[in-house]
Amino acid sequence: MGALLLTGIGELVTNDPTLGDGSALGLIHDAALVTESGRVTWVGRAADAPAADAAQDLAGRAVVPGFVDSHSHLVFAGDRGPEFVARMAGESYAAGGIRSTVAATRSAPDELLTANVARLVAEMRRQGTTTVEIKSGYGLTVHDEARALAIAGAFTDETTFLGAHVVPAEFADDPAGYVDLVTGPMLEAVVEHARWIDVFCETGAFDADQARAILLEGRARGLQGRLHANQLGPGPGVQLACELGLVAVDHCTYLDDADVAALAGSGTVATLLPGVEFSTRSPYPSGRRLIDAGVRVALASDCNPGSCYTSSMPLCIALAVREMGMTPAEALGAATLGGAQALGRDDVGRLAVGARADYAVLDAPSYVHLAYRPGVPLVAETVGGFRA
Amino acid sequence: MGALLLTGIGELVTNDPTLGDGSALGLIHDAALVTESGRVTWVGRAADAPAADAAQDLAGRAVVPGFVDSHSHLVFAGDRGPEFVARMAGESYAAGGIRSTVAATRSAPDELLTANVARLVAEMRRQGTTTVEIKSGYGLTVHDEARALAIAGAFTDETTFLGAHVVPAEFADDPAGYVDLVTGPMLEAVVEHARWIDVFCETGAFDADQARAILLEGRARGLQGRLHANQLGPGPGVQLACELGLVAVDHCTYLDDADVAALAGSGTVATLLPGVEFSTRSPYPSGRRLIDAGVRVALASDCNPGSCYTSSMPLCIALAVREMGMTPAEALGAATLGGAQALGRDDVGRLAVGARADYAVLDAPSYVHLAYRPGVPLVAETVGGFRA
Ligand SMILES: [Zn+2]
Ligand SMILES: [Zn+2]
Repeated sequence: MGALLLTGIGELVTNDPTLGDGSALGLIHDAALVTESGRVTWVGRAADAPAADAAQDLAGRAVVPGFVDSHSHLVFAGDRGPEFVARMAGESYAAGGIRSTVAATRSAPDELLTANVARLVAEMRRQGTTTVEIKSGYGLTVHDEARALAIAGAFTDETTFLGAHVVPAEFADDPAGYVDLVTGPMLEAVVEHARWIDVFCETGAFDADQARAILLEGRARGLQGRLHANQLGPGPGVQLACELGLVAVDHCTYLDDADVAALAGSGTVATLLPGVEFSTRSPYPSGRRLIDAGVRVALASDCNPGSCYTSSMPLCIALAVREMGMTPAEALGAATLGGAQALGRDDVGRLAVGARADYAVLDAPSYVHLAYRPGVPLVAETVGGFRA
Repeated sequence: MGALLLTGIGELVTNDPTLGDGSALGLIHDAALVTESGRVTWVGRAADAPAADAAQDLAGRAVVPGFVDSHSHLVFAGDRGPEFVARMAGESYAAGGIRSTVAATRSAPDELLTANVARLVAEMRRQGTTTVEIKSGYGLTVHDEARALAIAGAFTDETTFLGAHVVPAEFADDPAGYVDLVTGPMLEAVVEHARWIDVFCETGAFDADQARAILLEGRARGLQGRLHANQLGPGPGVQLACELGLVAVDHCTYLDDADVAALAGSGTVATLLPGVEFSTRSPYPSGRRLIDAGVRVALASDCNPGSCYTSSMPLCIALAVREMGMTPAEALGAATLGGAQALGRDDVGRLAVGARADYAVLDAPSYVHLAYRPGVPLVAETVGGFRA
């Protein structure tokens, strides 16, 4: 496959501030991009573009880096639509609902779980996502967690072991025994299938001591840590993540000043999941407060059947602007470069020479339309990303 | 064309409470539908379905009536993305921004305006909308209003003359003169192209006396009235609409108890436009309050380049559930049957024998997913509707 020249790009978001207008997005108008063998080989003004083996004219459309969705739970079976209806009628969200998905997932054949992931990954791709992290966490047995990660690994390298999602019903009287299982035989069985280890550190799930023990044992086995924290109320998770130097801590819905200071003083990315606040009718955290404090912010979908069943990164961008005080530029950056940082990746989330040629073509003249036109399927084409 | 049997419908929303589960949605599970010559000829359980000339198996997908979007402004030129960015950074929405679109629209050739409507109508259709009302209101001259309605009329029968959108700049010192133009030569020029007449009754646009005069003159010329009211603050519009017995009054963002009582005591449909509250960061009105008071409620997009540039009825449903206290069933009903009522139509918005065969097939087992999966493009196929 030779070099492809994409030209007629009305607005190109590179996420490289040394390019274009010099903003964080590195915007270039009337731009062109050359790709070869899945990598960006040239970027600049269309008028300056080199020749290539083939060309595609985008007629003024905008091009953005493919979205990097650094938080999802796609390996599951069952439907929690009725639980959603009840919640919208006034019932509050509780972590225990996870157990109903665990039961359905354990009893599902591999083929059904794989088909469900394939369906959701295809749906994400149609919406511009090119990199996705996928967690286990609805198996909660040695066999079912390893199975979930093997299935996830067929779609992405960014697989996360979340045995510590909730304590399963059969360990309700022995949570310490379940932590021993997670850090012992379960970790042993999954380590070859996972890159990351994660814990749901929340009242009703795992406390800070349990989370620390699990994350450190995972690290000892070569898995990098990430954390669900401060979703349902204030808690110790965000500061624990900073203390351990994790790459990312996710949710961050309830933060006090010490949490924000800890994030600002660490390299830990705060990943905001506004679809969760939308779908649980929770207050939204302020992205503005975090950005103004110097914290690195990512946006992700948290696609899962309980607290947030959206797969739409464009919706997350629109919500971050409407509800979290972020500008459209900050929200797009958080959904692309921010997601890449939350996965410790420098080959995705930007469109500069050497980066992967993973991008979305928008049926719009500017990335601003992702927030200006909420809910509208604006992604005309998604190129690159995922597993071949 | 012979009869088509749609079978394998996991969940069918008929909006006929004499069918299926007897709820307002008239839900039938494991359903089938027969259509012929664009009409529904049979509806019921798949097991009871008659033979037909052709069959399509939907493999468990849900089918809903096509969305009836009773409020849109699609005939325009220009981009107001930068105004949106400024608003999200803290500037408040004001009706005056309409004038920038008026300038761009007046100077645009017919072909550009037609192409823009065609693009937006196609986008709506991909999202399940099968009936759309389209307003003028960015021309504001005799020629440009007639031109806008002629263009709209190529796409829908539900065309609305909104010469009284704002007072154009050239009449800034003579608003009474502009009302005379609207009710005189402009009405004369557009009457053959419009079914409805509408006024933006709001501080900064037209007051109640002006609105009444315009609506009554339109009625005398055979145009039925509808009204933009109580969007930016409390006002007399909702009660005026009820007094005049209008089919619908739209926005209803700021309502006092007398407004709600007037709506409940009239046949006037209250059309809620949650995309506007989303895109202007306004408080949302309570759909719950209206429904509990016995008011008929519709949902529409208000797709326009200023206050709300979404074309997504699924997003409106999700917002009505998240933000307006409506159940998923009420929101779906308001986006289908409610929209039909707001246009005085009984042939759309439902899937019973004799109705138009206008429907959307969802990539989901239930209509609930329209709210449960916000932002996700769930419409797999849209059938019927619009102009042939
Ligand atoms: Zn999660
Ligand atoms: Zn309007």
